[in-house]
This record gives sequence, structure tokens and C-alpha cells, in this order.
Amino acid sequence: MYVVNYHERDAIEVDMAGAKGATVRWLVAKRTGALNFAMRLFEIAPGGIIPLHAHEEEHEIFVLNGKVKLIGDVEGYAKKDDIVFVPPNVQHGYDNTEGSEIFRFICVIPLLDKE
Amino acid sequence: MYVVNYHERDAIEVDMAGAKGATVRWLVAKRTGALNFAMRLFEIAPGGIIPLHAHEEEHEIFVLNGKVKLIGDVEGYAKKDDIVFVPPNVQHGYDNTEGSEIFRFICVIPLLDKE
Repeated sequence: MYVVNYHERDAIEVDMAGAKGATVRWLVAKRTGALNFAMRLFEIAPGGIIPLHAHEEEHEIFVLNGKVKLIGDVEGYAKKDDIVFVPPNVQHGYDNTEGSEIFRFICVIPLLDKE
Repeated sequence: MYVVNYHERDAIEVDMAGAKGATVRWLVAKRTGALNFAMRLFEIAPGGIIPLHAHEEEHEIFVLNGKVKLIGDVEGYAKKDDIVFVPPNVQHGYDNTEGSEIFRFICVIPLLDKE
């Protein structure tokens, strides 16, 4: 069991074609104890975007700060205190290009390869 | 894919011997789409407690608000922006009996029975 502030996890630029102003911190990853799922914290700066994409891993998301335009399967906005659920293989993305605040969210994914 | 504010999920009193002033909301549960893990939001009021206990499910926790005394395997405090990881079968609990703020946290657990 451990306790650590999230700022102690490195913010890594999101490595995806078309992504801009977006970072991810692996709060609980395989090497820090995750057994079945990993918890990450994303930040998308004003002007930033994570473009439309899809993958096998479902997302369970909780929004900590800000407001973002969702792109893909749901059109609309996600804001502080919202839950977003993205099922496997559903197109999704987050557009903060017109936003004025950092959009910060927790995003949990399954560890498909647990080895 | 859906978006919903967490207040739309019912706050249910934590059903555990010795628990006081503690509620849980199932943000993403099996019936709301969870496939491999469930996301919950707990609130422990000032004066409240979730006593020492252990179970097979690991916890990946992110603290949204407040500060709480941890009991069990780790002695110390968890506060806003902290990550807490509780491995399987490790004794843990959250004591807000001397606190002055609501302690609010996200807690993700595996769905051991996925059927």
C-alpha cells in the first residue's frame, strides 16, 4: 500500500498523430502495482486536442477540471464532475482548441496484457 | 459512450460494520457498462469513518477533496491530489473522525465476477 501525490508521476506528451498540448501521467501502472487496470491522469491545455481514435480498451473517465468538446460517438461537452464511459472500439476524442482552461481527467483502462 | 454528472448516481450508505458517515456512488458499474473494473466515488463526512478491513479486490484511488487519516498497512494521511494503491488482501481504512472537511475519492476495483 502506498500514497503518492500525482505530481510525482511524470507528465509525458501524448504520442498520437494529431495530438497537441496533451500529457498523460501513469498514476498506477503495471510497474507501480497495477494488476488488472491502470489509472492515468490526462491534461489537455487550452488550444490542445486528442484527436478522434478508437481501440480495444474501454475507458472509465472522471473529469477533475475544465470543460472539453467531445468528438466521435457522442457530440457535446464533458466538464468537471462528469463521468464519461467509452466502450471498446468506439471512436472518441477531446477537443480543447476553443477552451480557456486546462481539461484534466482521470482515465482508467484494462491491462489487456497482464504479464 | 455516455456522459453523466456524478450527482446523477445515487449516494448509498456504506454497508460495513463500524462504518459511519460514509457513502458510495457507483459511477460506472456492471449495469452501466463496466466490463473489467468499476469506478466508485466515496464521501466520508467530518466525523465519519470506514474502519479497518481487507478483501481480494485491489484499490486504485484518487483523492478529490479533503484529508483523511489512513489506518492499516500505511499510517499517515491521504489528501487532495494523492494516489493511494491498496493491493489485494491488505488491511486498510479511512478515519475522518477528527477531520473538518468531506473526504471525497475515486476508488476503482476489478470486477472479479464478470458475469
